[in-house]
Amino acid sequence: MSGSNKPKVVILGAGFGGLNAARELGKSADVTVVDRHNYQTFLPLLYQVSTASLAADHIAYPIRGALRKSGAKFRMGTPISVDHKNKTVKLDSSEVLHFDHLIVSMGSATTDFGIPGVEEFALGMKNIHEALAIRSEIMRRFEDLVRFEDETRLSIVVVGGGPTGVEMAGSLAELVKGPLRHDHYHASKHIDIYLLEAGPRLLPMFTPGLSEKTLRQLENMGVKVMLNTAVKKVEWRKTTLADGSSITSEVVIWAAGVKGAPAINDLSLPVKGNRLVCEPTCQVANYPYVWGVGDNAGVIGDNGRPLPMVAPVAMQQGTFVAKQIKRLIKGKDIQKFKYVDKGSMATIGRHKAVVQVKGLRLWGPLAWFAWLFLHVFYLMGGQKRIGTIADWTWNYLTFDRGNRHIMDSL
Amino acid sequence: MSGSNKPKVVILGAGFGGLNAARELGKSADVTVVDRHNYQTFLPLLYQVSTASLAADHIAYPIRGALRKSGAKFRMGTPISVDHKNKTVKLDSSEVLHFDHLIVSMGSATTDFGIPGVEEFALGMKNIHEALAIRSEIMRRFEDLVRFEDETRLSIVVVGGGPTGVEMAGSLAELVKGPLRHDHYHASKHIDIYLLEAGPRLLPMFTPGLSEKTLRQLENMGVKVMLNTAVKKVEWRKTTLADGSSITSEVVIWAAGVKGAPAINDLSLPVKGNRLVCEPTCQVANYPYVWGVGDNAGVIGDNGRPLPMVAPVAMQQGTFVAKQIKRLIKGKDIQKFKYVDKGSMATIGRHKAVVQVKGLRLWGPLAWFAWLFLHVFYLMGGQKRIGTIADWTWNYLTFDRGNRHIMDSL
Repeated sequence: MSGSNKPKVVILGAGFGGLNAARELGKSADVTVVDRHNYQTFLPLLYQVSTASLAADHIAYPIRGALRKSGAKFRMGTPISVDHKNKTVKLDSSEVLHFDHLIVSMGSATTDFGIPGVEEFALGMKNIHEALAIRSEIMRRFEDLVRFEDETRLSIVVVGGGPTGVEMAGSLAELVKGPLRHDHYHASKHIDIYLLEAGPRLLPMFTPGLSEKTLRQLENMGVKVMLNTAVKKVEWRKTTLADGSSITSEVVIWAAGVKGAPAINDLSLPVKGNRLVCEPTCQVANYPYVWGVGDNAGVIGDNGRPLPMVAPVAMQQGTFVAKQIKRLIKGKDIQKFKYVDKGSMATIGRHKAVVQVKGLRLWGPLAWFAWLFLHVFYLMGGQKRIGTIADWTWNYLTFDRGNRHIMDSL
Repeated sequence: MSGSNKPKVVILGAGFGGLNAARELGKSADVTVVDRHNYQTFLPLLYQVSTASLAADHIAYPIRGALRKSGAKFRMGTPISVDHKNKTVKLDSSEVLHFDHLIVSMGSATTDFGIPGVEEFALGMKNIHEALAIRSEIMRRFEDLVRFEDETRLSIVVVGGGPTGVEMAGSLAELVKGPLRHDHYHASKHIDIYLLEAGPRLLPMFTPGLSEKTLRQLENMGVKVMLNTAVKKVEWRKTTLADGSSITSEVVIWAAGVKGAPAINDLSLPVKGNRLVCEPTCQVANYPYVWGVGDNAGVIGDNGRPLPMVAPVAMQQGTFVAKQIKRLIKGKDIQKFKYVDKGSMATIGRHKAVVQVKGLRLWGPLAWFAWLFLHVFYLMGGQKRIGTIADWTWNYLTFDRGNRHIMDSL
């Protein structure tokens, strides 16, 4: 299909890593990006769709739009097998793509750690459909609750005290205390929000001081935070804890952990701990023409453990891998990947966030504005930025959340 | 549940008519609005969701938000039966609501006029799910087409030359000529858009001159308009016409007609032509405490035919019925409904629209700006207005459509 002499590069997955690689390589190689969706999802703001702050379309971006200036091609589809002898990847559309280099950047899926009932009764937080399912479920249970003007309660349990769980619980608390209180005062006063964390503190990647501040802010917002509380089993309306006790749970939101996307197991490549076994160069062991990126790459960090499954690692590795392929094209040696940790941030609610960048630690309004600025002006692009600013400005000024629609069924 | 002495009014359906009635009556009566969704859909802009111009959430509005200042209550649910002896309506949640007056304003559903294959193979345009299904189907077929860099074509057929079909076809043509051309030039040049109308002209409610202008504008935009062309059968990838000929159709969009919502048949009330048999007062014949509104009301107009199933009739009847119930509360006589036709407008594309208000006829840019102004400042409210202006401004300035996401499945 292509008469070019440029090496062929196929990139599996159009997340932060894959798109960075495509943009870096698009003019130097014959690049084809493959993704099962025709849009990229801005995962860091998924919880805002779940809690009716943002329109679902505003955290998605058409991949063809993102690639327009890059020179890269796009195919919608899922890889079903790789022929390493002929260097081809077959998609579910039956199309076969030839490659000289294969970049694997398919991201991650929710993991239930083998805990029974999670798959059946808990709601994941890894894509737009799951986010809309959470929004619909919360609003539907709220509409159910409105019918009972007695002491009936609604219990929403968020499992996982990392950034996703903290941001979800905080945003939920504000949804209940703001718009739902205006929607139906009695019902809103009968909603409990739990945040369960198996470890001894929230946001373990932050300093203990910031973890403590996060805990206190969430508690002030009405969230019932339970530390050192592992989940043993999830059932219909009931979550059983490790100590054998249980809490009522009409809605369970699973933000406890991720693992590499299951599709990496279909590529005939070495996988360990749900990630590709990778050299420090991001090349897959014994498959030097295959490159792992982000959540799919089991690259070992300075601390001897695999690098964390977070967006900055994927973004840096995407650019890094593209640069290495360019070096190979020019006949140069390739380098080892070095992760530059630029710090962490998490937002808890209005004027409430924590930021930790090297020696700098921020919390409260200053951290919140830093978070806001970074997300709007650095991470989001074009129309999505305008739409997000519009939604956020409205929410900020009116304390309302205009996207409370139950849209998961007819 | 209520100790009030006010008469109880149950309003079935929170469309334009039902919400107008609730806002007019909310303080004078004990009003409960029932709808199967927790949001109102702004139907006139549904085609803009289908063609990736607007985010789905932006043409929806939470009903509780719309009712906040009205004093009316809300229940999410569908009526399954009415007990006329005890004056109660039972919802699918099993809740039973008592009423002194019942207002039926549940709107309409797509009708296939009994044409075989429409239900199985054509996509309706009556709710947000259908609009998203159309968007997803068009974008998915486009992604399929991209794989064939040959003379393979994609054929999209819009059936129905009323405002919905005209607006859909025009917006589709602009999607193909703009963003899809940038996404993949070759594929975009291999898409055909048909608009089929059974009658002799488009937009029959407008003057023949405006119909003719609409036809020429659509043809200039590349739409293949076929007048006097009734559909006999729809099959997989094939639409057969009344004369026995057929056209290829990968996507068929059904904008040919509506009928009253099927749920009105569950209310034990007289129904004729899918509408309640109504007196000139909007009261259902022999059921003076039941009121029909909009698409559900078979009120006869000055021309001896039932009033058209359009939003202005529903809005005026909603307010009218509420006022009559208020008159009854005050012991006054009730009046006959008189429809005030304020004119029609339809947008065809950028700077292209037709407007007909009494003697006034507008077309081209002036009509388009009038349409834009009316929709933004008169019809839409609050956050939706801001979000819509943001999306439209972006589309207008960049010729892009940022909501091209295929979101109907995982």
